[in-house]
Amino acid sequence: MTILALTGGVGGAKLCLGLARVLSPEDVVFVVNTGDDFEHLGFHISPDVDTLTYTLADAANPVAGWGRQGETWHFMEALEELGGETWFRLGDKDLALHVRRREFLAAGQSLTAATAHIAQGLGVRHRILPMSDDPVRTFVHTRDGPLAFQHYFVRDRCAPEVTGFDFHGAASASVNPAIPFEQVTGVVICPSNPFVSVDPVLAVPGMGEGIRRSGAPVVAVSPIVGGAAIKGPTAKMMQELGVPATTVEVAKHYAQRTVGGAPGTVGGAPLVTGFVIDAVDTDAEGEVQALGLATTVAQTVMRSLDDRVDLARVVLDFLGAGAAASGP
Amino acid sequence: MTILALTGGVGGAKLCLGLARVLSPEDVVFVVNTGDDFEHLGFHISPDVDTLTYTLADAANPVAGWGRQGETWHFMEALEELGGETWFRLGDKDLALHVRRREFLAAGQSLTAATAHIAQGLGVRHRILPMSDDPVRTFVHTRDGPLAFQHYFVRDRCAPEVTGFDFHGAASASVNPAIPFEQVTGVVICPSNPFVSVDPVLAVPGMGEGIRRSGAPVVAVSPIVGGAAIKGPTAKMMQELGVPATTVEVAKHYAQRTVGGAPGTVGGAPLVTGFVIDAVDTDAEGEVQALGLATTVAQTVMRSLDDRVDLARVVLDFLGAGAAASGP
Repeated sequence: MTILALTGGVGGAKLCLGLARVLSPEDVVFVVNTGDDFEHLGFHISPDVDTLTYTLADAANPVAGWGRQGETWHFMEALEELGGETWFRLGDKDLALHVRRREFLAAGQSLTAATAHIAQGLGVRHRILPMSDDPVRTFVHTRDGPLAFQHYFVRDRCAPEVTGFDFHGAASASVNPAIPFEQVTGVVICPSNPFVSVDPVLAVPGMGEGIRRSGAPVVAVSPIVGGAAIKGPTAKMMQELGVPATTVEVAKHYAQRTVGGAPGTVGGAPLVTGFVIDAVDTDAEGEVQALGLATTVAQTVMRSLDDRVDLARVVLDFLGAGAAASGP
Repeated sequence: MTILALTGGVGGAKLCLGLARVLSPEDVVFVVNTGDDFEHLGFHISPDVDTLTYTLADAANPVAGWGRQGETWHFMEALEELGGETWFRLGDKDLALHVRRREFLAAGQSLTAATAHIAQGLGVRHRILPMSDDPVRTFVHTRDGPLAFQHYFVRDRCAPEVTGFDFHGAASASVNPAIPFEQVTGVVICPSNPFVSVDPVLAVPGMGEGIRRSGAPVVAVSPIVGGAAIKGPTAKMMQELGVPATTVEVAKHYAQRTVGGAPGTVGGAPLVTGFVIDAVDTDAEGEVQALGLATTVAQTVMRSLDDRVDLARVVLDFLGAGAAASGP
């Protein structure tokens, strides 16, 4: 069996770590959002791929939630002295990853191959696959105009009021050919931001179709718990988009996504089949089920490694894959 | 008046610092060897330009003789972990200079412009001019075959036995158009390696001619003192080339260089007019004068900043420019 886990950055990476502790490298594939990627200081920056890589390598910075453990900042200090851009922080160790990635890409390798080389160097045995090797760039539409994702997220600290999103390049991007759709027995949509972490992944032509073709159940874990986002701007975005920041609204967002309908219609089959609700939102279970989604209730706020592993087991059980899960 | 100082790395940079303390930015131009330059880890590395920049910025590492003061190496450690090349050491702070230079070059700026931006950022007011904005690459011919300079110098630690040199690209390179030859009143050839630091500078078409046209005296400071090189492989190279490692042989090397003769002939006017001998080599003065060079004797081993300033004053007096020298 093969579990496909669709993920963005920090929040999703927590569940991915739990899945990696429960499933062997043969049994799970992590498909990562690259809509956050951008070119900066001459480097290809791939924040979600790197967050997952560092997390699985047990090298992630547990406090910041991004970047490397025990990172130092002498490069940034010297860059500032030389008048360079310092709004996006690249640590001294993190730079090594970026220099290596540029070497691989400059040698004509794909982002997938570069990611694999780097993950291997950090001792990661599980498969980390960018959603596509083609450039997809998330733009956040705001009252101040459209912003490239990192300008919205990092430089402007999510302050501008969001009106919508688009994913430049998605329509012409090819889904990562290394994703083994035909072997997929279950799909997990990690508790990442539905709008800027998961939607870009599902916007890649062939992603939803490949998942649907596999016939596997697709379970999403709510990133909204008790009316607030566990991390990041999800709740703020929902409010700005005029929807209540509730787990029910997240469920609606996923329940509405269909695959196989004529382009631009709401026809086709629903993609998501199940939804994981946090225990504090138990009273929402009926509403979510009314959307046609199977539900299960769990402790979804992952503070400890045990929390991550426990949630992974709940999700796998929910997918009916728990029994097949072998230890790493 | 304008003094032109031709220099390589560490040894030459010491005298350049002395000159910079004695002469105002309007009165001196440093012309730097770029034959050591190479592309590495996706960066344009310009060791002699950077050594001089850091030296004039009082930011050079006084122990290593290259790189930055108070440097840290977290990038290199992480790069090694990721299987990157680590034989050429790039410190965390030094990386900022290289990232900035790549930004400037990628924006279509010349190496000269990039060098000026970086020097300004580090508070350097004196002019640092690469010998050319075109690529010139020094190759060291050895019994093991030809080696790119940094492979010979850094990776192989000058171990291979030298049989000769060539400067790829020199013939088609244009001399840096920013060098104000028409204003030059004196030229200093700093105590750098004659073969791999000074010869590449003089190999750029128009360099010798521009100097000769200025009619200015050209004074070389011997890098060989008491039969040994103050720093670097000069003495070892001379022995391997079958010439004694003496100040007289260095004087011969410079005395033989002529400008304006038919290509490939020894015709033309001699370029170098004077030679600075260390006090320990006073007995060689007659032999050097017999080569047609004016001589002066000085304390050329520069241990302290005062040594650097003192030698700068001697050289300027020798050039007859001392009187015109104004403080910075």
